[in-house]
Amino acid sequence: MEKKTLLTHCTDAPGLISKITNICYKHQLNIIHNNEFVDNTSGHFFMRTELEGYFNDKTFLADLDQALPEGAKRKLIGSNRKRVVILVTKEAHCLGDILMKNYDGSLDVDIAAVVGNYDTLQSLTEKFDIPYHHVSHEGLNREEHEKKMLEVIDQYQADYLVLAKYMRVLTPSFVEKYHHKIINIHHSFLPSFAGAKPYHQAHERGVKLIGATCHYVTEDLDAGPIIDQDVIRISHQDLPEDMVRLGRDVEKNVLARGLRWHLQDRILVQGNKTVVFN
Amino acid sequence: MEKKTLLTHCTDAPGLISKITNICYKHQLNIIHNNEFVDNTSGHFFMRTELEGYFNDKTFLADLDQALPEGAKRKLIGSNRKRVVILVTKEAHCLGDILMKNYDGSLDVDIAAVVGNYDTLQSLTEKFDIPYHHVSHEGLNREEHEKKMLEVIDQYQADYLVLAKYMRVLTPSFVEKYHHKIINIHHSFLPSFAGAKPYHQAHERGVKLIGATCHYVTEDLDAGPIIDQDVIRISHQDLPEDMVRLGRDVEKNVLARGLRWHLQDRILVQGNKTVVFN
Amino acid sequence: MEKKTLLTHCTDAPGLISKITNICYKHQLNIIHNNEFVDNTSGHFFMRTELEGYFNDKTFLADLDQALPEGAKRKLIGSNRKRVVILVTKEAHCLGDILMKNYDGSLDVDIAAVVGNYDTLQSLTEKFDIPYHHVSHEGLNREEHEKKMLEVIDQYQADYLVLAKYMRVLTPSFVEKYHHKIINIHHSFLPSFAGAKPYHQAHERGVKLIGATCHYVTEDLDAGPIIDQDVIRISHQDLPEDMVRLGRDVEKNVLARGLRWHLQDRILVQGNKTVVFN
Amino acid sequence: MEKKTLLTHCTDAPGLISKITNICYKHQLNIIHNNEFVDNTSGHFFMRTELEGYFNDKTFLADLDQALPEGAKRKLIGSNRKRVVILVTKEAHCLGDILMKNYDGSLDVDIAAVVGNYDTLQSLTEKFDIPYHHVSHEGLNREEHEKKMLEVIDQYQADYLVLAKYMRVLTPSFVEKYHHKIINIHHSFLPSFAGAKPYHQAHERGVKLIGATCHYVTEDLDAGPIIDQDVIRISHQDLPEDMVRLGRDVEKNVLARGLRWHLQDRILVQGNKTVVFN
Repeated sequence: MEKKTLLTHCTDAPGLISKITNICYKHQLNIIHNNEFVDNTSGHFFMRTELEGYFNDKTFLADLDQALPEGAKRKLIGSNRKRVVILVTKEAHCLGDILMKNYDGSLDVDIAAVVGNYDTLQSLTEKFDIPYHHVSHEGLNREEHEKKMLEVIDQYQADYLVLAKYMRVLTPSFVEKYHHKIINIHHSFLPSFAGAKPYHQAHERGVKLIGATCHYVTEDLDAGPIIDQDVIRISHQDLPEDMVRLGRDVEKNVLARGLRWHLQDRILVQGNKTVVFN
Repeated sequence: MEKKTLLTHCTDAPGLISKITNICYKHQLNIIHNNEFVDNTSGHFFMRTELEGYFNDKTFLADLDQALPEGAKRKLIGSNRKRVVILVTKEAHCLGDILMKNYDGSLDVDIAAVVGNYDTLQSLTEKFDIPYHHVSHEGLNREEHEKKMLEVIDQYQADYLVLAKYMRVLTPSFVEKYHHKIINIHHSFLPSFAGAKPYHQAHERGVKLIGATCHYVTEDLDAGPIIDQDVIRISHQDLPEDMVRLGRDVEKNVLARGLRWHLQDRILVQGNKTVVFN
Repeated sequence: MEKKTLLTHCTDAPGLISKITNICYKHQLNIIHNNEFVDNTSGHFFMRTELEGYFNDKTFLADLDQALPEGAKRKLIGSNRKRVVILVTKEAHCLGDILMKNYDGSLDVDIAAVVGNYDTLQSLTEKFDIPYHHVSHEGLNREEHEKKMLEVIDQYQADYLVLAKYMRVLTPSFVEKYHHKIINIHHSFLPSFAGAKPYHQAHERGVKLIGATCHYVTEDLDAGPIIDQDVIRISHQDLPEDMVRLGRDVEKNVLARGLRWHLQDRILVQGNKTVVFN
Repeated sequence: MEKKTLLTHCTDAPGLISKITNICYKHQLNIIHNNEFVDNTSGHFFMRTELEGYFNDKTFLADLDQALPEGAKRKLIGSNRKRVVILVTKEAHCLGDILMKNYDGSLDVDIAAVVGNYDTLQSLTEKFDIPYHHVSHEGLNREEHEKKMLEVIDQYQADYLVLAKYMRVLTPSFVEKYHHKIINIHHSFLPSFAGAKPYHQAHERGVKLIGATCHYVTEDLDAGPIIDQDVIRISHQDLPEDMVRLGRDVEKNVLARGLRWHLQDRILVQGNKTVVFN
């Protein structure tokens, strides 16, 4: 017996749940959990089905393809661990939390490597017996640096990249290569304070809550589909450096939560938004 | 075209979603929204299906009964407004919030009457052109008082009763009469501080958060199935009277949220717990 | 015995707390509660002191003026109720919450009148025996409308104006007339989604939390000093109309909280920010 | 120039703030931050004063002692790092978070050693170059085990002990030895679900929020003065094992926050409650 997750995404039509679940039943696949959503503004149907049984992927998917409307997208995902490469700069808290969650089994992922544009986090990474690559950007333009980064990253054949406070902007060609496969944590409650130094912007504006946003990276900086967000309360006493410190916990929590949902195939992207079946 | 909600609750079995959605499809009922949950600890299956179409309740339910396992419970609920009677004592905030939400259309309910053991809230109720009954408990024992309450309540043939800070304990026979149809708000984060004066208990214990709990009333005081809970932060500065004041907002918010879910048939009760499809 | 609140605001200097509290002590005024804050970025000192005793305002303030640095601002505020005029358009929830809190004693304020550019909320206001003025904007330009509004408002000699979902932009001259005396609730987590239709903007962007912001009105629309903010979680299921409904509770809660702090003289404004001693 | 923190705690009396701040001023100690609280139920005065300057502790404290009422307690605490020993059992997340925060500078503390009744966390601890002691409880009664624990702990002359999911009950004599110097994290929103297996209790009761409580350890199990608490939302879908996983983040966040406040001397204990100047 295996467990797999079926993600379906198509134009809405009558009887879709019935058709899909019939096929599951016919194939003697037990539905452990099912989520469904119709976006009435766009007329799209989304479904996530956790299945258990003996799978014949080929005939199962063929049956589905016959039943689903033109242009439907469906994906049957095995329960094997995903493989990620983590990109970092200097800040330790998001990387540290992922390493620790991986260490104690809270996060079911295979961390292939950590790649940083500084060597600051090499020692931390290696404590957990994970390879670290220092790819300095000094003296290189963005394209040159990314080329060197990709040489390192590509060798690991990662399913996904995690930007754990990687503080450099990616080029469109990098982003396209890992389309909807790069997860970033931005240290503000987007769309507030996009861009650089969000805590300084927040202090300047005098907001009473600060936040963090986990999102897929797209060409448009800090504007990709949002996976999760959270906030914490601050006060007039908090300087930007206090926010930096206080923000660490919310950043790492939001990144870990978004990453877990992503790794569990709970997220479907449509346009610039996410459907999160959590 | 009508909208109805189907609630199904039975022992888990293979193909249940498929069977139920097939019947919907056969009857040309469109599934607007579907939620499903299997409680693996008890082996129970729960499903809530919002349907749209032309209903033949009798044949639809007959088809369902044939498909569902022995002992299954199913309910097809029309979208007509529910009718409630609200019980109160002296505090205005929960009643006031419900009256206001009803007034501005935020809460889709028909408030048949308000019944109080004091006349304190008569004037407020009547501002909103809703009948108020003052049924004093003075000089009466609990059974006598409830008898008089029920004489008043019963004439309204309410679907549900809402205890909006009704500060008297109900007898088992009263509770049984409205089994799982009485919604209460308790001013603590249950199971902490059950019973009387929870804010004084909270102050005594020195907790840093206070809360409120919306639950169905059962024989066992403050121990019924919990619908929703929430908390707010307090500090060493807050005396019991501050908590009373601060707690009002969390009480009314939690009651309104739980009541809305209940009125939208989003809640299934199993044993002493709720499945809330929100 | 009276209770008064002293607000002090000046350039920071050594010994300020000592000097101020000495003067209180000398005048036999008991300090019930004291808050102090030094903004190290601007070098400003802020203090709020709740006092109890027999006040000779003149000599007390004279003593203070001698002790405080050049340019210091101090205000000794009696505990009499403040008088507000509430401005509304069509939405009932914020007005309703203030009326209800005033009715049950949760909000210590004198509501002199409600003024609306529609008559939608007249009936609700009058239920609570508060005068309502309908000042239609139809056929008038903004200046003409405001002139008529001010004719009505000014007669009540209000201490403060509360914009309880008043959906019109105020002119700079109106704002200046009630400088830092107009409290607004904006239905977004500012600075996100300033301007019109914030819930539609939020839906468009696909955020996972929506919020509300209570702030002082300044010339620059939605950019005044923020008093308080809060958020609630939403999901991909929530359409703009759901957000409107869900947002009502957070809007009214944030406005009520900000208004209470304001009425209790807990807020000092410096530049575009607030110091909130809560 | 040095920074020190003065904590004062005594029966309330007129002019206390004035007297204390006068003495600071006289000694040319600049008040960086001041918090004060009077508990009107007990008539106690609490004050925390962050000072900067050149300290003559002896004369400063002598002046204070003369000014303060009989029985006053005052403590002048230097800004040197505190030294802690961490006690653990098998769970990694709380220890891991403290190690990581210590590693990246988020938590200003000197971790002298980690002591566990299993060797599970030895490898993790040693990654961070901190000594680990495995003191097995097998075959020992509680007193015997504690004796061996104390032999190890005492050699480090720790200021405080942190129970980072140390799953054994301490004897009164152990607790007394480190009176108000042992910080524990309990994985429930106390007083709900004290004792063993709180997540199973929470699942059994069907609560909609689970939480964690950071508190000082006293003789009475899970009943010591509460420092901080927090909660997260769960649903009917979450089994006890899900709660265990979800609860890890709230446990570690609450412990880290409580520990930071403790290390910054922000907490005064009175009876079974805390005054937290944060």
